[in-house]
Amino acid sequence: MRSYKPEELFDANGRLIPELKTLAPQGTKRMSASPHANGGMLRKDLRLSDFRDYGVPVEYPGKSEVENTNPLGKFLRDVMRNNLQNFRVFGPDETASNRLNAIYEVSKKTWMGDFLPEDLDGSELATDGRVMEILSEHTLEGWLEGYLLTGRHGFFHTYEAFAHVIDSMFNQHAKWLDICRNEVSWRSPISSLNILLSSTVWRQDHNGFSHQDPGFLDVVTNKSASVTRIYLPPDANCLLSVADHCLKSTNYINVIVADKQKHLQFLTMDEAIKHCTKGIGIWEWASSDDCGKDPDIPDVIMAGCGDVATMESLAATAILREEIPDLKVRFVNVVDLFKLQPDTEHPHGLSDRDFDSLFTTDKPIIFNFHGYPWLIHKLAYRRKNHANMHVRGYKEKGNINTPLELAINNQVDRFNLVIDVIDRVPKLGSAAAYVRERMKNAIIENVNYAHEHGIDKDEIVNWKWPF
Amino acid sequence: MRSYKPEELFDANGRLIPELKTLAPQGTKRMSASPHANGGMLRKDLRLSDFRDYGVPVEYPGKSEVENTNPLGKFLRDVMRNNLQNFRVFGPDETASNRLNAIYEVSKKTWMGDFLPEDLDGSELATDGRVMEILSEHTLEGWLEGYLLTGRHGFFHTYEAFAHVIDSMFNQHAKWLDICRNEVSWRSPISSLNILLSSTVWRQDHNGFSHQDPGFLDVVTNKSASVTRIYLPPDANCLLSVADHCLKSTNYINVIVADKQKHLQFLTMDEAIKHCTKGIGIWEWASSDDCGKDPDIPDVIMAGCGDVATMESLAATAILREEIPDLKVRFVNVVDLFKLQPDTEHPHGLSDRDFDSLFTTDKPIIFNFHGYPWLIHKLAYRRKNHANMHVRGYKEKGNINTPLELAINNQVDRFNLVIDVIDRVPKLGSAAAYVRERMKNAIIENVNYAHEHGIDKDEIVNWKWPF
Repeated sequence: MRSYKPEELFDANGRLIPELKTLAPQGTKRMSASPHANGGMLRKDLRLSDFRDYGVPVEYPGKSEVENTNPLGKFLRDVMRNNLQNFRVFGPDETASNRLNAIYEVSKKTWMGDFLPEDLDGSELATDGRVMEILSEHTLEGWLEGYLLTGRHGFFHTYEAFAHVIDSMFNQHAKWLDICRNEVSWRSPISSLNILLSSTVWRQDHNGFSHQDPGFLDVVTNKSASVTRIYLPPDANCLLSVADHCLKSTNYINVIVADKQKHLQFLTMDEAIKHCTKGIGIWEWASSDDCGKDPDIPDVIMAGCGDVATMESLAATAILREEIPDLKVRFVNVVDLFKLQPDTEHPHGLSDRDFDSLFTTDKPIIFNFHGYPWLIHKLAYRRKNHANMHVRGYKEKGNINTPLELAINNQVDRFNLVIDVIDRVPKLGSAAAYVRERMKNAIIENVNYAHEHGIDKDEIVNWKWPF
Repeated sequence: MRSYKPEELFDANGRLIPELKTLAPQGTKRMSASPHANGGMLRKDLRLSDFRDYGVPVEYPGKSEVENTNPLGKFLRDVMRNNLQNFRVFGPDETASNRLNAIYEVSKKTWMGDFLPEDLDGSELATDGRVMEILSEHTLEGWLEGYLLTGRHGFFHTYEAFAHVIDSMFNQHAKWLDICRNEVSWRSPISSLNILLSSTVWRQDHNGFSHQDPGFLDVVTNKSASVTRIYLPPDANCLLSVADHCLKSTNYINVIVADKQKHLQFLTMDEAIKHCTKGIGIWEWASSDDCGKDPDIPDVIMAGCGDVATMESLAATAILREEIPDLKVRFVNVVDLFKLQPDTEHPHGLSDRDFDSLFTTDKPIIFNFHGYPWLIHKLAYRRKNHANMHVRGYKEKGNINTPLELAINNQVDRFNLVIDVIDRVPKLGSAAAYVRERMKNAIIENVNYAHEHGIDKDEIVNWKWPF
């Protein structure tokens, strides 16, 4: 030990000599206080354009169609343009397929390898590209976590079914955020982990069963309510409003579910902002129970959560209004999934008073859900009207089907939903037997048509809200 | 095209000449009929010893302790010995930690690299080893799937929390099995994919929050009922009975949850076989409601599912029997999780008649569950008595805690369960306020003791069923 020459390092009292003591770093140069290990300290808010400028016009609800992720792509393009130092987009080679390709106008895919002549043909490669693409979801998730933890911002979009590849990584990040938020006061908030699930279960006409799995939400709902947020915007304007909110937030994991294909548009931008801010609401224009007098109405609540689920539920509502005009139907749409949980369980949860006002305490609810149906029961089992809540959703009845056939196999289609209403509204009784029969005929007719032609009938493909 | 000399290959009618036609392979030599691509055709049943021979003696229920996976290790050792051509064990370097080390007596870890002198010290390596170990759960899962698909047998054991690493692979295998079973009649059944989740959420005293995640079961319950099976054996004899059943089965994914540490033993081998065959049942010796006359009994049903959950529920039952002797308690244990689903939803599901007989249609049920509590609601929401079902389980309230403190934080401990009973059995009313107060005192006392000593009190660590 003498060979270390302690007499040169310490004074007679065994204290470190002043010359050496002054060598120790000060302030943020101390290892424990490095801002690079507490990335929130380095984080700067994104410079965001006004998302309203990217909205699509909606003159009447349910008449026009848009690829919902396309306007989002233009918004993200300008997020990229305004934040070229601290924003990146991550995805498994799906940016174009997910209709987010406007981003490439500003920044390409990161590519460090050789650039070949054939790469000129739409490959969108650049050494300084800020779009991170690799068909390896866990590599992307690792990159993104490191990027956020060092104070930057990101947006991850992936196939819904294959988000399960990052289940375990998501779990650990959620646990880390939860402890940081609630128990480590010196950690500065980092940007939220934003995940868009696109190419969803209901539009896998060609990929089939292997690409149908909406269960990432089930994993997310197991994690702490203080860090988890889930949104299912039904149209393009709602998606923009939700995405803007998520990009501004910190310390959350925001999961957004929105399919990339063409879908009906329902809300103007102003309406979309109100709807997404509430997170759940009655769509007056689709409802027929607003007479405000009779305490016994509505007869039934139709609820939709998710783009395709909402459309089928609306189509069922339209059939009901035409076939059984006396039936008083209330139409509820859910954007913010955690609204269904009680406010004692999740900060976004509705109070019982709020929930009971929307869903009543005694009327049948036919809830059409984007994901596995039991997830809704998992969230809402404490509600007063839970016993009357009848949920439809994906139940592993998949194959290479037309969109309507897939919906029919899982009973989330308009015809089965009408049957559900007839079976659950007591006053309809056997008087509705003829309507019920027509629904069964429609199911058979449409499935046979799909098998014969390989596509759905025009009246299904081009269905519009008829009122 | 003439250069291919078609006149030498085809006759005047354009038919392939006989000499060439006979070259085409016949029978199983045809590519489409290769048994190596239809592994069930090559599969031979395992030669299994009688699992009863590995059982542990249980003179009285709840008195003695055993590491539950240890006897299973001896059984698997002999499965290995008797099937050295077509059985392998897979795990992330945890065979010894999971108390399955008896297997090494027959076969070591596969190791193709250099063998160094220091490897003599317990590394258990051999080039012909049949235990596949690598700290990479998805590599293991890939190996195992290939092994099963080519007609062999396997047993995968892993940390419960990190089973999420293979969520996506599990999903795809489950979808593949489902289609094969139900739509591809020429596919011969393959061995089941057997997964033991050990090192579970409730015994992570040193690893803490990151190692606490019982959510793999939530992923499994989303897949088709025709291929998914989940077992939570409460003791060593039940684990042996379940494992034997799983190793004999085909075309399922069997998930077994059993912790590796010392736990109380409850059932003799004969009792364990009956209990696991039923999958769910009343434990008469723990119950106090079997007088057979009064239709108004029991006052409450205590249910346990999982080793630790069952023990805490029993400890609560013991407190109730001592503190409130008039209270008629029924104790139910669940081994086969899908028993909770209606028989219309899962082939293992109980009929409503069976379920209602066990759980009544109107009495409070205090259900203590190994995993996330809402999973029980997801399975049982259609049951008549669902509204009276109060479920406790893991709810992400974890840290480096003593076992009892972790239980208390998540309210699955004996004291909180007693409070749950007092709050839900109407006739107890405020007369039980003194017992309730004593439970609150016990919680404070035990948490303080854990903080001061870093371990639980002797009376907790060494708790035995007192009757």
